[in-house]
Amino acid sequence: MYTKNSYPFLWSYPILFVFLLLLVASFSVQARDTQEYWIAAEKTDWNYAPSGGNLINPENGLGVYGNTLVYTKYRYIGYTDNSYSQPIPQPEWMGILGPTIRAVVGDIIKVHFLNNTDLPLSIHPHGVMYNKDNEGADGGAGGSIPPGGRYTYTWVVDQDAGPGPDDPSSIVWLYHSHVMAEHEINLGLIGTIIITAANKARSSRGPVPRDVDQEFIALYMIFNEENDEESGMKHTINGRIFGNLTGFETTLRQRVRWHLIALGNEVDNHTAHWHGQTVLDRGHRTDVIEIMPANMRSVDMIPRSPGNWLFHCHVNDHMMAGMSTRWIVK
Amino acid sequence: MYTKNSYPFLWSYPILFVFLLLLVASFSVQARDTQEYWIAAEKTDWNYAPSGGNLINPENGLGVYGNTLVYTKYRYIGYTDNSYSQPIPQPEWMGILGPTIRAVVGDIIKVHFLNNTDLPLSIHPHGVMYNKDNEGADGGAGGSIPPGGRYTYTWVVDQDAGPGPDDPSSIVWLYHSHVMAEHEINLGLIGTIIITAANKARSSRGPVPRDVDQEFIALYMIFNEENDEESGMKHTINGRIFGNLTGFETTLRQRVRWHLIALGNEVDNHTAHWHGQTVLDRGHRTDVIEIMPANMRSVDMIPRSPGNWLFHCHVNDHMMAGMSTRWIVK
Amino acid sequence: MYTKNSYPFLWSYPILFVFLLLLVASFSVQARDTQEYWIAAEKTDWNYAPSGGNLINPENGLGVYGNTLVYTKYRYIGYTDNSYSQPIPQPEWMGILGPTIRAVVGDIIKVHFLNNTDLPLSIHPHGVMYNKDNEGADGGAGGSIPPGGRYTYTWVVDQDAGPGPDDPSSIVWLYHSHVMAEHEINLGLIGTIIITAANKARSSRGPVPRDVDQEFIALYMIFNEENDEESGMKHTINGRIFGNLTGFETTLRQRVRWHLIALGNEVDNHTAHWHGQTVLDRGHRTDVIEIMPANMRSVDMIPRSPGNWLFHCHVNDHMMAGMSTRWIVK
Repeated sequence: MYTKNSYPFLWSYPILFVFLLLLVASFSVQARDTQEYWIAAEKTDWNYAPSGGNLINPENGLGVYGNTLVYTKYRYIGYTDNSYSQPIPQPEWMGILGPTIRAVVGDIIKVHFLNNTDLPLSIHPHGVMYNKDNEGADGGAGGSIPPGGRYTYTWVVDQDAGPGPDDPSSIVWLYHSHVMAEHEINLGLIGTIIITAANKARSSRGPVPRDVDQEFIALYMIFNEENDEESGMKHTINGRIFGNLTGFETTLRQRVRWHLIALGNEVDNHTAHWHGQTVLDRGHRTDVIEIMPANMRSVDMIPRSPGNWLFHCHVNDHMMAGMSTRWIVK
Repeated sequence: MYTKNSYPFLWSYPILFVFLLLLVASFSVQARDTQEYWIAAEKTDWNYAPSGGNLINPENGLGVYGNTLVYTKYRYIGYTDNSYSQPIPQPEWMGILGPTIRAVVGDIIKVHFLNNTDLPLSIHPHGVMYNKDNEGADGGAGGSIPPGGRYTYTWVVDQDAGPGPDDPSSIVWLYHSHVMAEHEINLGLIGTIIITAANKARSSRGPVPRDVDQEFIALYMIFNEENDEESGMKHTINGRIFGNLTGFETTLRQRVRWHLIALGNEVDNHTAHWHGQTVLDRGHRTDVIEIMPANMRSVDMIPRSPGNWLFHCHVNDHMMAGMSTRWIVK
Repeated sequence: MYTKNSYPFLWSYPILFVFLLLLVASFSVQARDTQEYWIAAEKTDWNYAPSGGNLINPENGLGVYGNTLVYTKYRYIGYTDNSYSQPIPQPEWMGILGPTIRAVVGDIIKVHFLNNTDLPLSIHPHGVMYNKDNEGADGGAGGSIPPGGRYTYTWVVDQDAGPGPDDPSSIVWLYHSHVMAEHEINLGLIGTIIITAANKARSSRGPVPRDVDQEFIALYMIFNEENDEESGMKHTINGRIFGNLTGFETTLRQRVRWHLIALGNEVDNHTAHWHGQTVLDRGHRTDVIEIMPANMRSVDMIPRSPGNWLFHCHVNDHMMAGMSTRWIVK
């Protein structure tokens, strides 16, 4: 490490500082919106395979993973307002994921959190700018909200929260509880934030990118339900196993963005593979995207071949354990 | 997920559609060739260390991995024509890999598959465009070819099968059997497809890129021969252990492209490392390329230093278990 | 594989050859410096948690990982000259790392190695150009230096050792002992080389990039101290656990480069995560960088939010086992 006073170009710093001030000022001006969300943490039953069967290879059944299908999970549920009475419906393919928070660079995000469970919980976001009280972790005011408690998190969507120069027009960030993070992630307290670049949004108020027709999110994660017993190792995509996640449906020539995320443990090194179609990953063509715990990858696809295709982890044991579902091109 | 009718720019779609039609038409015109291959699946003996010894550190021997060296494997073998009588010779460094299928963007690939084994098998390709019957997996006509059966797969090499804008002039895709994929991959039914960009091919009929002098393929994979017993965990590069893969030979200042692939299980997270030389990985300089199951990476090297160099997995246990060989610069 | 004599464009080769000669000549001219280092290998005590406590969550303590904190390690220590009497002080955040070797593309590096231990050891560098005797591995003259022995390694910093076209202005390479590499890496014989692009150095003699104010290095590695017993699996950043690595301190708006490296075994697949700030990874915005054994990643950050933030592995078990520390923005 070296120190600043050894630098020959110090004279340039005041200029830099003025530039930064102008930059911050320009953000304030162009701030289009405060994106407001009401999210409750709730204790619910979760069924890893609502059909009760293996929808990929029905004749194979669910193996030991079918011994028990329903477990108590903790989830983030989105509501329309601060009465927390009207849950916002989610597409079927979102599975166990909490509500998707969307914003454009320049926006402010406000998340009104209600902890309707019996554990102290929080919401810790990746990517966005916050001070200690809005970190949702590690000792600030929002770091641990007691059962029944409420807290409003304020996050700033600055340039450093948005797509980089080689990223697509929107990128995905994780959010999750972070009081005892490893425990609460396994409970199911997981969601995503999608940030669109300032000049790529569909309209002045809508945070959806205009060069994309459809966005899907896929969380690859092995939930550990029975203290490492194999029957409780649920190898899921968005919390479903053996094809029980439905709704990844699109049509030919749509511009589809896939946001891929993973969370978990040493076994959660996944390789998401689509049959039937490739994706563009920052200029690289592939049909396999590797994701390790907390990786966040946003890749683009324009479906070319109609069909009912597999979408699965290419790690052999994971595929066999049910980490597989279907995506449909009409 | 949002729906198309909420978009303000729908008027642009007909234009897009006409553009796409023209694009498809232009492919038909520029299609240069049908690349035709005759590939049989065969049951053979495979020796993981034909020399019988450790060619990296002879004094260390092969350890438990040397207890048994020859196992029954299933392999893809390339033939000159539909008599399947004349196998196409492969360079020694290809080891257990099936024949390399080559094509240029715009081509059609036809693979005439003969299953000369006692198991139902298939050929499932990554990357290329196919309909359900040509997927080689998951229920289509080519999804499971019985013992003695034949099937011709037709794959379209469209733009989405070729290098992306930031890829080198050729990229690698896997193919493998996909009836019970995890089992058949471990049997050895693995090969690659190399696709060259349309304007980067060496000639109008040759699918080899003209900005490259030599291409090598390296599959990092741990074959599991004895139900997880360590002595049967063969830590291989192209199916050989402890330096028994020979033939990675080049000369100073050649333009060498390395296509790296991995397959397998939770332990198959590999970090391929060359001594003596670095590679360029889409603009990034390194000498270690990480590959997880089904990852496919194509990186470029111009050898600068003559020598007999190691090429090995940098994961400690893997290196110790024989995942190491040599590459030679003359 | 195909051979050169099948190429239609052979006429271009003499031109290429002349170009290469000119290129090599230009390097000789612009070679600014020989970077000279005196490095000894020494046997020392190492304390994984000098504070004796858990500085992240003090109430949780150190668990089984606290049973024993001090072990015998082998380290690379930098000295001012060939008397090896005056060790070069290192910042606290460097922890167990050996001295950082710095050079600019065009330089020569000379490392005068003294093996002050009871084991044969070496220094094997990544990235730089060497012949067999300077490889520090695999049989050359510098491949195994006996206890008490000395050896001077000469490494050439050619273009292929410097940043690629899409890399930042400096990149990190590992060096480590490579007689029995897997054993010596676990002993602690690890350091880094940082190479700055020729036109990006701060001055004609200083190898530090001028577009960066501060550089940090973080090694994520699980040291195995007790033959796989969990209490001996020290989940470290630069050799410290549970917040005992101190000194990652910077100020708002500094241009900070983080060089991330990993080494080790099958469990050493890490995902480094910063709270409070994102990084730019070759044009991609993220706050999680995945590193597998021997991966070397250099990413940039401009701190935006003051605070005392976590920096930890996002793999659940690793985080719980102490792979966590703090970075501070003032």
